[in-house]
Amino acid sequence: ARQGLPEVVYGSGKTPGQVVEVVRTLLRHNAGPVLVTRVDAGTAISVLRAVPGGTYDSEARLLVWRPAEPTGFSVVVAAAGTADLPVVREAAAVAAAVGIGVTTVTDVGVAGLHRLLAEQDRLRAADTVIVVAGMEGALASAVGGLVACPVVAVPTSTGYGAGLDGITALLAMHASCAAGITVVNIDSGFGAAMAAFRLSRVARRGTP
Amino acid sequence: ARQGLPEVVYGSGKTPGQVVEVVRTLLRHNAGPVLVTRVDAGTAISVLRAVPGGTYDSEARLLVWRPAEPTGFSVVVAAAGTADLPVVREAAAVAAAVGIGVTTVTDVGVAGLHRLLAEQDRLRAADTVIVVAGMEGALASAVGGLVACPVVAVPTSTGYGAGLDGITALLAMHASCAAGITVVNIDSGFGAAMAAFRLSRVARRGTP
Amino acid sequence: ARQGLPEVVYGSGKTPGQVVEVVRTLLRHNAGPVLVTRVDAGTAISVLRAVPGGTYDSEARLLVWRPAEPTGFSVVVAAAGTADLPVVREAAAVAAAVGIGVTTVTDVGVAGLHRLLAEQDRLRAADTVIVVAGMEGALASAVGGLVACPVVAVPTSTGYGAGLDGITALLAMHASCAAGITVVNIDSGFGAAMAAFRLSRVARRGTP
Amino acid sequence: ARQGLPEVVYGSGKTPGQVVEVVRTLLRHNAGPVLVTRVDAGTAISVLRAVPGGTYDSEARLLVWRPAEPTGFSVVVAAAGTADLPVVREAAAVAAAVGIGVTTVTDVGVAGLHRLLAEQDRLRAADTVIVVAGMEGALASAVGGLVACPVVAVPTSTGYGAGLDGITALLAMHASCAAGITVVNIDSGFGAAMAAFRLSRVARRGTP
Amino acid sequence: ARQGLPEVVYGSGKTPGQVVEVVRTLLRHNAGPVLVTRVDAGTAISVLRAVPGGTYDSEARLLVWRPAEPTGFSVVVAAAGTADLPVVREAAAVAAAVGIGVTTVTDVGVAGLHRLLAEQDRLRAADTVIVVAGMEGALASAVGGLVACPVVAVPTSTGYGAGLDGITALLAMHASCAAGITVVNIDSGFGAAMAAFRLSRVARRGTP
Amino acid sequence: ARQGLPEVVYGSGKTPGQVVEVVRTLLRHNAGPVLVTRVDAGTAISVLRAVPGGTYDSEARLLVWRPAEPTGFSVVVAAAGTADLPVVREAAAVAAAVGIGVTTVTDVGVAGLHRLLAEQDRLRAADTVIVVAGMEGALASAVGGLVACPVVAVPTSTGYGAGLDGITALLAMHASCAAGITVVNIDSGFGAAMAAFRLSRVARRGTP
Amino acid sequence: ARQGLPEVVYGSGKTPGQVVEVVRTLLRHNAGPVLVTRVDAGTAISVLRAVPGGTYDSEARLLVWRPAEPTGFSVVVAAAGTADLPVVREAAAVAAAVGIGVTTVTDVGVAGLHRLLAEQDRLRAADTVIVVAGMEGALASAVGGLVACPVVAVPTSTGYGAGLDGITALLAMHASCAAGITVVNIDSGFGAAMAAFRLSRVARRGTP
Amino acid sequence: ARQGLPEVVYGSGKTPGQVVEVVRTLLRHNAGPVLVTRVDAGTAISVLRAVPGGTYDSEARLLVWRPAEPTGFSVVVAAAGTADLPVVREAAAVAAAVGIGVTTVTDVGVAGLHRLLAEQDRLRAADTVIVVAGMEGALASAVGGLVACPVVAVPTSTGYGAGLDGITALLAMHASCAAGITVVNIDSGFGAAMAAFRLSRVARRGTP
Ligand SMILES: Nc1ncnc2c1ncn2[C@@H]1O[C@H](COP(=O)(O)O)[C@@H](O)[C@H]1O
Ligand SMILES: Nc1ncnc2c1ncn2[C@@H]1O[C@H](COP(=O)(O)O)[C@@H](O)[C@H]1O
Ligand SMILES: Nc1ncnc2c1ncn2[C@@H]1O[C@H](COP(=O)(O)O)[C@@H](O)[C@H]1O
Ligand SMILES: Nc1ncnc2c1ncn2[C@@H]1O[C@H](COP(=O)(O)O)[C@@H](O)[C@H]1O
Ligand SMILES: [Mg+2]
Ligand SMILES: [Mg+2]
Ligand SMILES: [Mg+2]
Ligand SMILES: [Mg+2]
Ligand SMILES: [Mg+2]
Ligand SMILES: [Mg+2]
Ligand SMILES: [Mg+2]
Ligand SMILES: [Mg+2]
Repeated sequence: ARQGLPEVVYGSGKTPGQVVEVVRTLLRHNAGPVLVTRVDAGTAISVLRAVPGGTYDSEARLLVWRPAEPTGFSVVVAAAGTADLPVVREAAAVAAAVGIGVTTVTDVGVAGLHRLLAEQDRLRAADTVIVVAGMEGALASAVGGLVACPVVAVPTSTGYGAGLDGITALLAMHASCAAGITVVNIDSGFGAAMAAFRLSRVARRGTP
Repeated sequence: ARQGLPEVVYGSGKTPGQVVEVVRTLLRHNAGPVLVTRVDAGTAISVLRAVPGGTYDSEARLLVWRPAEPTGFSVVVAAAGTADLPVVREAAAVAAAVGIGVTTVTDVGVAGLHRLLAEQDRLRAADTVIVVAGMEGALASAVGGLVACPVVAVPTSTGYGAGLDGITALLAMHASCAAGITVVNIDSGFGAAMAAFRLSRVARRGTP
Repeated sequence: ARQGLPEVVYGSGKTPGQVVEVVRTLLRHNAGPVLVTRVDAGTAISVLRAVPGGTYDSEARLLVWRPAEPTGFSVVVAAAGTADLPVVREAAAVAAAVGIGVTTVTDVGVAGLHRLLAEQDRLRAADTVIVVAGMEGALASAVGGLVACPVVAVPTSTGYGAGLDGITALLAMHASCAAGITVVNIDSGFGAAMAAFRLSRVARRGTP
Repeated sequence: ARQGLPEVVYGSGKTPGQVVEVVRTLLRHNAGPVLVTRVDAGTAISVLRAVPGGTYDSEARLLVWRPAEPTGFSVVVAAAGTADLPVVREAAAVAAAVGIGVTTVTDVGVAGLHRLLAEQDRLRAADTVIVVAGMEGALASAVGGLVACPVVAVPTSTGYGAGLDGITALLAMHASCAAGITVVNIDSGFGAAMAAFRLSRVARRGTP
Repeated sequence: ARQGLPEVVYGSGKTPGQVVEVVRTLLRHNAGPVLVTRVDAGTAISVLRAVPGGTYDSEARLLVWRPAEPTGFSVVVAAAGTADLPVVREAAAVAAAVGIGVTTVTDVGVAGLHRLLAEQDRLRAADTVIVVAGMEGALASAVGGLVACPVVAVPTSTGYGAGLDGITALLAMHASCAAGITVVNIDSGFGAAMAAFRLSRVARRGTP
Repeated sequence: ARQGLPEVVYGSGKTPGQVVEVVRTLLRHNAGPVLVTRVDAGTAISVLRAVPGGTYDSEARLLVWRPAEPTGFSVVVAAAGTADLPVVREAAAVAAAVGIGVTTVTDVGVAGLHRLLAEQDRLRAADTVIVVAGMEGALASAVGGLVACPVVAVPTSTGYGAGLDGITALLAMHASCAAGITVVNIDSGFGAAMAAFRLSRVARRGTP
Repeated sequence: ARQGLPEVVYGSGKTPGQVVEVVRTLLRHNAGPVLVTRVDAGTAISVLRAVPGGTYDSEARLLVWRPAEPTGFSVVVAAAGTADLPVVREAAAVAAAVGIGVTTVTDVGVAGLHRLLAEQDRLRAADTVIVVAGMEGALASAVGGLVACPVVAVPTSTGYGAGLDGITALLAMHASCAAGITVVNIDSGFGAAMAAFRLSRVARRGTP
Repeated sequence: ARQGLPEVVYGSGKTPGQVVEVVRTLLRHNAGPVLVTRVDAGTAISVLRAVPGGTYDSEARLLVWRPAEPTGFSVVVAAAGTADLPVVREAAAVAAAVGIGVTTVTDVGVAGLHRLLAEQDRLRAADTVIVVAGMEGALASAVGGLVACPVVAVPTSTGYGAGLDGITALLAMHASCAAGITVVNIDSGFGAAMAAFRLSRVARRGTP
């Protein structure tokens, strides 16, 4: 794309034919990676048949052509439990496809602080931590207090009742007492990975 | 009162004359403690002049006559920072007035987990923990994971923006991943203390 | 679990394979009860085949292995009508599985006060009352005025329109004029039972 | 007014001069009562000086000229506590000014059912019950279950936190399990009294 | 029922077996009409087979046994268009079953004032007008300005977007500039009919 | 301004010094009218002293320099009552300052349809109708049904309770059953006048 | 219709029989175009068989009989991407059916300003621009700053999470910093087209 | 602080005495910068008298002791207009105090795209862009499309009506079509500056 970001198509609600058309155009007119997010398996198979050379990650629901070379920039994607895994996987797969090294750390909810603390070193070694958390979103605050690197929080729509489909986690992450953490849209593993990509570009540039 | 709870008057919006009248009636027709919450200093002075024998706690904004004897039941009131102190004080003063032993533990926000963990033993020794927390309310989840006793969470209206005057903390505490924590109204130190009083009665009763 | 609470898995959205794996791990590494909530009948059958020794309560949608011995602590679960029964059953079954004696009292909505008053003695004999109520949630206030023991209110998502899928009941219970009642998440029979478990531990401990 | 309702001016935000002008016009062009609601004492004095023959009720904040003859129709205005009294008084004073007999019954919150039940006979003798209730609004449900006459519920903005300035009570009253109760706007004692006036006209008409 | 209202069962979410059981009990222990609302055709057929003597109105989705004798009290049910018809029918059928005479007036939205004004005489002849209106709910204000009898407004969940499934209409009806109109829950034709029943009892009683 | 709209400064929250500076710059670099909205009297006096040649309309709270010549395009600004007058005045004064002919029609709320119908001819003669309405906003629907010209609706924050400071009127106007009416922000008389200005430009252009 | 607008039926939720009946009546009693919006293909086929002479646009989901002659008035319908296309098509097809010339400009989201600026001339040549935009709705502000003609913004319900099904876009468009843009209901391509029709009538009329 | 972030005290609601105490403690136990945000001038003067060596920025409302050395990392803080300036200043002053180079670019709202495009080079030269934007928050999307570096968006509470005190801008920024932009709390210039600080640390570290 014009300003230097990878090309990512939002697959939800598009027919295989529509996806094929846009992917072909992007592959022809750009040099870098081309991704399609939120693609179900049926659509993926049709599209890959028409536009070979891509790969499909069914857990992340992601199609990728021409993945980027690793840049040396690395993130940890941290989450509390199994419910948030689809979002964890979208974040991890998009990040990997745009050249970022990814480690995932799960089962570290704030109701079990000792498991979280046991991962401190891995969290501190990261260039950026992506925190994926539903329900009350408290994990973002706790991680923000443990590391000094950028923290990108992704609220998720898991849970029920007072969780309000992710709105509660989104608001709670913004109201967080941990200074300097930032937030992306509900369930947007994609958004967090793209935020990390922007970060990786600054890191590569370095500082005088 | 009829069913065994102490008599507590809601002072907000009442004139000194109205408070005097209701307190006199309660002192005459009941035997236990009589409390008035949310009383400013001016009103307190007028009321105490008219109904002697009471005491006023200006930080808790509480008037008390005939405080209860200590029952041996004890709570820890835990909070993250200075902003939530008025609510901490209301909870502590009401609890003390109805016979509960109170310890307060502050400066234990989730963005500083090590300070919180340093208080683990005190938290675990409590019969009940009252967690007072504004902003994202994450402290309730963290404490709920550290102790097995009852946890009563009080969301507070501190902070700004996405905190929505306490609504975010209230919803987040309900959506919490920590099992079995319960919640009272925003800023209601009073409500948490009364919940603790109800608990203290069961504890005294014991189990066969 | 580490801090003394029973192990409870949230079954919603998990495949039978995922449930089997987590249950096996918990049975191996812990001594007490292992529960899985929100399990449909099909999943339950597959899981029980793979991990024998458990039982399934289809009305409560609950799987249980190694239920706890009765502790002598007892709760009444009170509700207005048939619409709230699934939540009543989840509360009752989880409570029973963790060692609490359970009585259920239904058809006691506030629009029929005489039926509610007829149950006063049973309510007062309880160590704790769990009130399950949708729509306007008024039952919690009424019960809170009748008993001095802990009251844990569970708002439900039954009804339509202005009930806002349980949000109205949740807010109303918090705004309740009955002092010291506490609230858990919408439809969370599980949360109320775990709150009761925490209470039962304090009661067993007694007070000096 | 054209369709048979009394003329009522909304005083809030109007200058004394504006009130004087509209009242003079209404007195000249109509025959029945003329009322101004939400008038503070200062404005009331100025207006009465300019338009003699009226009376001011400072608790109800109401100005009245040419009150109606009693019609024989009577309402009970019921409320839980002192906080809702200003709304109770507006309802009562407007109703009286349009010819309705009024009894007020206070201190009957649902957290004290026995006091409410003690008033059953008075409630059942009414042609209509106006229930004024803030916080969780449960009194409307309870009264709706005790009487078969029309029940008009007025949510109030008293309380704090989860009460959401009366929105919670308004929604809760709509979600009420008591059949056939109706609701007016938050704090609108005026609206309830006018609803009662409409009822009184049908009652006078009788049924063939 | 105890206080003089007809017995009405909420059918939604109940199995045919549950409906049969409660209807049988009500028919045995009461003398008046027994109704079940929100019943689909399949359930209705099963129930009528098990409890003969009832009738099913498929448009109103209502089952009725022992309808009441006409009382001479009559309502007009007014609505703007076809989208609100199911709620109109529930209101009309419930009202008829409890002894109220019913006329329906449709196609009278405020965007076509002349059609509404053409119905003025019919509206003014009614003992009560039930206004069923979705979207912006303006019809309630307009009718409230045309008649002096009680107006019961039913907001409906029709429309899309800013209508918020009926919440907008509900709030708008409360904020209405027409004095003394009252409101029931979203889509609750039942609630409006029961409010009319309460009114009919007062009218029958008359005024001294 | 670049694209052909008049220059309008939002005065709220600006110091007299800030207003003076921006007005001077605009007068120097543009040819047409320069307006400042939401200016209190004190600020206006200071600014006019520093930048002579302007006029201040205290009811509209508007400062104007170099008002436009009349264009022949004319609007009616219609409103229900006195409460909405400040917004009516802002709309009217801004429209006049940008060259539009303005008539105001007040006291035409939907609760008094006959007064509204009496103004039909004036409404139909307008090139555009601006409807200013708070509370339930129903006037927009009614006017939209009477005229075929553009209708720009301005919700206002007047009223209390369920009016939600104008949100209810805004949503209700969007959900309106009258086809093709458009809406601007709450209390934005300015926005409606600017919408009318855009319309006047198309009208002047004419159609081939 | 009486006041000069075309007749448009809202097809959603209507049976083919209901549509046939209302279309027949409208064709008989009016002279101009008759439209039915939100019609699925199955219904359309049945209706066209019963009422010949119409056409069905499956992408716009629109049925049209007797389309209007072109009036010379023309609009541009602008949108960011593929997700908003169904709303774009409804706006375009309704506008064309009522005699308006339509150009559509897509792929002009604010995240790609250069594509938007490349369309400036086409946008400026329009008599009115209809902006269809979901998510954050920013396109309306950007277009409002580029053109001086009327801008009608249609928020759409596309996207997920914080988009709140179009509520965020609707509110954002109202809060827009671009002066004089107006807004219609979420997803209402129909509403925008009708607003354009009202505009076209004024334009035809011209100004003296 | 423990994890490497500067110490920042939230001054709002603290007495001068409380601020003095916490600042003294922080200066004694830490080596880096100590900041106090949201301090009014009166408090600042008292505090500086008691704890010399600090400076007060009255527009940013910030107190600073021991500002950090410049790190070579630089941000652009971009905003649309004067209303958002206090937040711009807080962001800029906090960033400068923690060692970040700051340029501010104002008057670049999306309703004036050409002014924004004229700043493209400055925006692209930044290591990070902080976008401060109220009302509809569209500036964040536009900037996100112009640059490939990290974009931190700060919604502000400026404006009125549909802006909902910043909630609309916050939601709109999350729903933005620009990939990888992140968001902090409403009005939190502080939060954005701290996010930039976290970024600056990664940049300094570089990538292998
Ligand atoms: N999962 C996703 N969530 C939000 N936006 C996305 C997602 N995947 C791709 N996008 C964005 O969607 C836009 C492409 O949309 P489209 O033109 O409909 O394919 C680009 O701006 C992408 O950055
Ligand atoms: N701070 C408080 N918050 C909420 N309710 C309170 C508070 N203090 C007292 N109450 C309750 O207010 C009621 C007494 O109200 P009143 O009759 O107005 O004095 C009792 O039910 C108390 O339990
Ligand atoms: N307290 C009140 N709350 C709401 N509406 C009122 C109130 N008092 C009078 N009104 C109504 O306000 C209208 C008169 O408003 P105005 O023309 O501003 O005096 C009439 O429709 C009255 O029915
Ligand atoms: N303007 C601000 N907005 C939000 N949080 C802040 C602000 N200034 C300081 N803080 C945070 O507030 C906490 C200190 O709060 P306190 O202990 O009350 O001074 C630290 O976590 C800071 O990161
Ligand atoms: Mg989580
Ligand atoms: Mg906190
Ligand atoms: Mg219930
Ligand atoms: Mg109350
Ligand atoms: Mg309607
Ligand atoms: Mg109005
Ligand atoms: Mg868009
Ligand atoms: Mg802005």
